[in-house]
Amino acid sequence: MTLDGQWFTERCKEGGSAFSLKVRAKLHEEQTPYQRIEIYDTEAFGHLMVIDGFVMLTARDNFVYHEMMAHPVLYTHEAPRRVLVIGGGDCGTLREVLRHPEVERVVQVEIDERVTRLAERYFPELTEANGDPRAELVFADGIRWVAEAPEASLDVIIVDSTDPIGPAEGLFNEPFYRDCLRVLGEGGLLVQQSESPLYHQRILTAMRRAMRAAGFADLATLHFPQPTYPSGWWSATMARKGRPIDGFREADAAARPFPTRYYTPGTHRGALALPPFLAAALEGT
Amino acid sequence: MTLDGQWFTERCKEGGSAFSLKVRAKLHEEQTPYQRIEIYDTEAFGHLMVIDGFVMLTARDNFVYHEMMAHPVLYTHEAPRRVLVIGGGDCGTLREVLRHPEVERVVQVEIDERVTRLAERYFPELTEANGDPRAELVFADGIRWVAEAPEASLDVIIVDSTDPIGPAEGLFNEPFYRDCLRVLGEGGLLVQQSESPLYHQRILTAMRRAMRAAGFADLATLHFPQPTYPSGWWSATMARKGRPIDGFREADAAARPFPTRYYTPGTHRGALALPPFLAAALEGT
Repeated sequence: MTLDGQWFTERCKEGGSAFSLKVRAKLHEEQTPYQRIEIYDTEAFGHLMVIDGFVMLTARDNFVYHEMMAHPVLYTHEAPRRVLVIGGGDCGTLREVLRHPEVERVVQVEIDERVTRLAERYFPELTEANGDPRAELVFADGIRWVAEAPEASLDVIIVDSTDPIGPAEGLFNEPFYRDCLRVLGEGGLLVQQSESPLYHQRILTAMRRAMRAAGFADLATLHFPQPTYPSGWWSATMARKGRPIDGFREADAAARPFPTRYYTPGTHRGALALPPFLAAALEGT
Repeated sequence: MTLDGQWFTERCKEGGSAFSLKVRAKLHEEQTPYQRIEIYDTEAFGHLMVIDGFVMLTARDNFVYHEMMAHPVLYTHEAPRRVLVIGGGDCGTLREVLRHPEVERVVQVEIDERVTRLAERYFPELTEANGDPRAELVFADGIRWVAEAPEASLDVIIVDSTDPIGPAEGLFNEPFYRDCLRVLGEGGLLVQQSESPLYHQRILTAMRRAMRAAGFADLATLHFPQPTYPSGWWSATMARKGRPIDGFREADAAARPFPTRYYTPGTHRGALALPPFLAAALEGT
C-alpha cells in the first residue's frame, strides 16, 4: 500500500525498514549551524522533533527513553551528586535527573541551543525543570567541555546524543571515553544511548570496545522498547570506573519520591536481562 | 520523504503510524476461504508473511514472539503435559512447545491449512518439528474444537491468533474463555497474544475483563519487544484456573535443555515487570 495524506517517514538502512507517523502539520523547520531541525504535529504521537531526518522524540513515547537514560545509572551509583548530561537538548533526560534529591548539580552541555529553544516551545513539559537552581545549561561542544573539565569532578556522565554521524560522531570514540574516565570519580558511571539491539550491533560492539580500551572497569548494556526509534527497541550502555557494576540501589529505586511511567526496579532488572542473541553479539566486548 | 523502490507497508490506525519493510520480490499471494495471504522476500528481514495486510511474521524477528508465547506459560505450569495451540499455523510456537521434554502431546488447531502449507515452503525452519510424534495438526475451527473437548483434558492452551477482527474475533470473547476454563485442569493456564501495550490497551483490558468474567482465578500480562508488529512492542496475557500465578519454575528455565534467542529466566521476569503506565491502564481488569 501507499500512504495517503501527509506522513513523516524515517528510513533505516541497516533495518531495510521504515517507520512513519501520520502528520497533521509541519510546525517548524530550520537549518542551524549544526543540523536541520523539523517539528511536526502528529495525529497520535503529539509533537515530533526530527533532526537530519531522524526521529529524536515524540510527546507520546519519549518517557521510556528519558527515564531509562537517567534512572538506571543514577540508582547504580551509590551517591550521585555531580551529574553531566552531554547532548540531551530537549531536556527530557535533565528533567528525570533533577527528580533525584541526592543530585546537587547537573550541567547539561548541548552543542545546539536551537534544540533547547524549540523544546521549550514545543515540548514544554520536558523543559519544566530547567529553572531548578541545581541545573546549569551550557551550549557548547561536549567533547571539548569534558576535555577541559577537572579530574574526578563528576559522579555520572549521561551521553544523550544523536546517532554516531554528524556532530555526535566524536562521542562514540576512545579519546572521548578516556576524557570521561578522567573526569569521573572512583566508581563513577558513564551511560550512553547505544542504538538498536537488533539493527546496530556493530555500533554497540564498537562502543563497548572503545569504552574498555579507554580503561573502564566494567560495562552493562540495557535494553528497552522505544516505539518511534528504528526497530522499536533501543539500548543504553553503562561503563564504570574502577569497579564492577554489581546491582543497583533497589530499595531506593522502589521508594523513589517521584512518578515514573516506565522505570521501576523490575523494569531496571528487565533491561539488564540480555536476551541470548544479544549477549552472544556482545560477547568479548 | 517518500519511499523509493518496492516496499511492504502496514498502517496502524490506532498508532497513527506505519511500518515498512523493503521488499525484493513478492513470492506468493492467494485468497483462501478465510483470508488473503502474501509472502515477500525482504531486503533485511528474510521472508515475510502477511495476512489481510498485517505482518504475521518475518524470518528475522519471529523468535521473540514465538519463544515468549511458549516458554513463559510452560515454565509457569508445574507439569505441562497436554498442550493445545489455537491458530499458530506458521508452527513457530508449536516448535517451541515441542522443545519441552515434559510435554507429551500438543494439538494445534489452525483454521486455515494454507498458512501451514505456506510456512512449510517459506519458513521451513519453523515447521521442522511438525513430524514429532507428540504433535497433531488439526485444520479446523479452534473455538468449536475447544467447545467439544472433554473437561479437564488440557494443561496449557496457547492462543496464537491474528488480531481480533475476521476469523479470530471469537477468540477474544468470554464464551470462548469459559470453554477454555472448562477444558483446562486445575491450575491449568491459558496464554493469548494481547497486542501492543502502547496502542491496544482497549483490546488488552477487554480481554482481561472477559477472562476474569469467564472465571479465571488470576491473570498476568507479559510485555516484550517485537520489531515488526505495530509499535515494536507486544504483549501476551496468561490466565490461570483455580489458583494464582505465583512465579515460575526458574531453575528448570535456567537449565532448559534447548537453545533460545530471547527467552531466559531473566527476560521472563522482565516481561512480567509491568511499567507503571501499563499497570495503571490494566488496573481493575
